[in-house]
Amino acid sequence: MKFCSDCSAPVRHGVPDGDDRLRHICDACGMIHYQNPKVIAGCIPIFEGQVLLCRRAIEPRMGLWTLPAGFMELGETMAEAATREAFEEAQVEVELEALYTLFSLPHISQVYAFYRARMPEARFGAGTESLEVRLFEEKDIPWEQLAFETVRRTLQLFFSDQKSGEVKIHIEDILPRPSV
Amino acid sequence: MKFCSDCSAPVRHGVPDGDDRLRHICDACGMIHYQNPKVIAGCIPIFEGQVLLCRRAIEPRMGLWTLPAGFMELGETMAEAATREAFEEAQVEVELEALYTLFSLPHISQVYAFYRARMPEARFGAGTESLEVRLFEEKDIPWEQLAFETVRRTLQLFFSDQKSGEVKIHIEDILPRPSV
Repeated sequence: MKFCSDCSAPVRHGVPDGDDRLRHICDACGMIHYQNPKVIAGCIPIFEGQVLLCRRAIEPRMGLWTLPAGFMELGETMAEAATREAFEEAQVEVELEALYTLFSLPHISQVYAFYRARMPEARFGAGTESLEVRLFEEKDIPWEQLAFETVRRTLQLFFSDQKSGEVKIHIEDILPRPSV
Repeated sequence: MKFCSDCSAPVRHGVPDGDDRLRHICDACGMIHYQNPKVIAGCIPIFEGQVLLCRRAIEPRMGLWTLPAGFMELGETMAEAATREAFEEAQVEVELEALYTLFSLPHISQVYAFYRARMPEARFGAGTESLEVRLFEEKDIPWEQLAFETVRRTLQLFFSDQKSGEVKIHIEDILPRPSV
């Protein structure tokens, strides 16, 4: 941010009175421009024990596999965002069951939320942001070709919980590590 | 938003190619300025069955009671934000136990997260954003003087779960209603 989005004057980086953090401050009109973490909502679409993954047609991580997920939009609930993203990226109509994983990623200022989701039928296809969309059995998951650590961790927990029979919400922090 | 924060040219409201939502678009430099929901993190500080509430010294809802909570900052986990806000608003050092309520408020594009938190000792005080801070037994909660529906609902669930003995996470949407 270089200019004030309210009055177009140059902004400076400084700590406002009564604050303890650097913000973008406009001395011309007095506006303080706050920036905050973003929420990414997605789901694990499940059909007869298989999970639906999308191969990304866009950067970052083009060509790698992901669960359908994307930035929550203004005016949405987290569940609405997760349902919308599944339809946009995988052309699938899902029935959300429950929130399953919730991650804080402080190094990139993101919060990720994945829901478990039922696919009433095996109807899906590649949306504009996907190269291909496929159902995977656990043994066929492309673990070395997953786009994001949040996806890897959600799938790992999902199959582990399936075996133990105890399916519950998982709330974790994910810190930087070499990408998979 | 009236001007591009990258180049200071006027922005227009339009739907970018390949998108289906109105965004702020800068035709001068090509930047699309996305806006997304914000996360508010807070906690229920608990000492010997009593909960700690803060009377707000700032707008909105100045003079009304709230649980300590505030906007999650860049670079934080949700738990770090909740802990920091408790210290800033109520000068209390809490030990978070677990995420307790998670609300989507689509009409104001917010996500609220409250943790259950243990107060190791009854040490607290009014931070700069609070007029006073007090421990309340359930019978003394100022239900008609609570600042936010998220706070009212969290306290309602908390005391109800205490009675039933089943303390679990609650994930709900909160839609507009007359303020309490």
